[in-house]
Amino acid sequence: METINSLQNKKVKEWASLQQKKYRDRTGRYLVEGKHLIEEALGAGCVETILYCADQPFAFQHTVCVTEAIMRKLSVNPSGAKYIAVCHTPVFLPKEENRVILLDGVQDPGNLGTIVRTAVSFGFDRICCSNECADLYNEKTIRSTQGALFRIPVERGSLEETIRNLKADGFTVVGTALRDSVAFSDLPEDGRYAFVLGNEGNGITEPVLELCDRKVRIEMDGFESLNVAVAGGIVMYRFRRKA
Amino acid sequence: METINSLQNKKVKEWASLQQKKYRDRTGRYLVEGKHLIEEALGAGCVETILYCADQPFAFQHTVCVTEAIMRKLSVNPSGAKYIAVCHTPVFLPKEENRVILLDGVQDPGNLGTIVRTAVSFGFDRICCSNECADLYNEKTIRSTQGALFRIPVERGSLEETIRNLKADGFTVVGTALRDSVAFSDLPEDGRYAFVLGNEGNGITEPVLELCDRKVRIEMDGFESLNVAVAGGIVMYRFRRKA
Repeated sequence: METINSLQNKKVKEWASLQQKKYRDRTGRYLVEGKHLIEEALGAGCVETILYCADQPFAFQHTVCVTEAIMRKLSVNPSGAKYIAVCHTPVFLPKEENRVILLDGVQDPGNLGTIVRTAVSFGFDRICCSNECADLYNEKTIRSTQGALFRIPVERGSLEETIRNLKADGFTVVGTALRDSVAFSDLPEDGRYAFVLGNEGNGITEPVLELCDRKVRIEMDGFESLNVAVAGGIVMYRFRRKA
Repeated sequence: METINSLQNKKVKEWASLQQKKYRDRTGRYLVEGKHLIEEALGAGCVETILYCADQPFAFQHTVCVTEAIMRKLSVNPSGAKYIAVCHTPVFLPKEENRVILLDGVQDPGNLGTIVRTAVSFGFDRICCSNECADLYNEKTIRSTQGALFRIPVERGSLEETIRNLKADGFTVVGTALRDSVAFSDLPEDGRYAFVLGNEGNGITEPVLELCDRKVRIEMDGFESLNVAVAGGIVMYRFRRKA
């Protein structure tokens, strides 16, 4: 059983650097806090090391006992955490896809995490984030997913290229927009769909909107304002995978 | 034009106390930050005083010019705000109601605010919060409503009593629950409905669930986990007021 007591330990410094996006991007690693989320990460085979400072409840081979001071340094919570897992990004096998979500600049980590959680609950196959989106491995995003991030491929990159590939594969690409759009309930349910959700303040960017095959508007009454995760929930519920 | 320069001014201390729920409850007053939200508050006739520290863009009779230090003291933002309005709770005239949302211990201010925003966008008539819910006049809740809190009556109190009154008025009271429930899409659309949404971690409390006429479950696939504001959005979209 490995034990680390010093805040100056090289591994501790490496783990602490994962609180910053640039080190997560460089190493492909991130920190996961809390028992429920760590169990989900274990189920997906994403855990490399579990750090703990009290009892060690996980049947896992790579564990390190650390001090409370180290936990406080590594946790987003000023009072520390009981368990923190160092994880790598999940790997998914390719499969037939029918439902994809594209996120064009969703910047709030809570919204991004909630959309990932909803997508898994409604059986969506993949999420593609533009480079302007919040980071999936930000602690707040991870927490908002409730562990769903270990169950769905989430890519990051140019949406224009993704849309061209989806169209070549026979997908209908649908943007949510208030103007020049048809009522969401008029969209037929059959077919392979990719839905685009836009930025909290500005919606979908013009170049992405131009590539959409259709634009739909969620029907509202007077005050027309929906949170992007709520809009995503309404869209994904109607187009959910049905048993 | 009134000007206040001292952080020790009695009014400044009174306004600063409104950052705490107990003083908001005692006085029926709260602070609203940001131009868009203040415009919504003005439209609803809820503004008493507008504080500003640069130019004064609002055509309003009760304005006070204050220092940047006072703005930093009153704002939730450490760097201060340009405008802060001191508001009182909105007053609504009684009207015929068909759609009501009941919140049983929704504790996250962002979730509460998002539900209020969604309820207004879908033409719901009233929201009733249990005493365990987050405070509506918390800055984060107000911001998440995007101004919708000025457009819908939001009450606070015992849900049991509210449910009894709604039933006496011919409402069907529907709880969202995973167990012992029927599929949400099987719920008929006609009638007067009150929907109950529960706490983020524990759902609807047993006494409230027992009073529900029906329990519905939003159909999911495998990973059954929805954010409460997303669940509310799905329910309210289907039962929205239609033009």
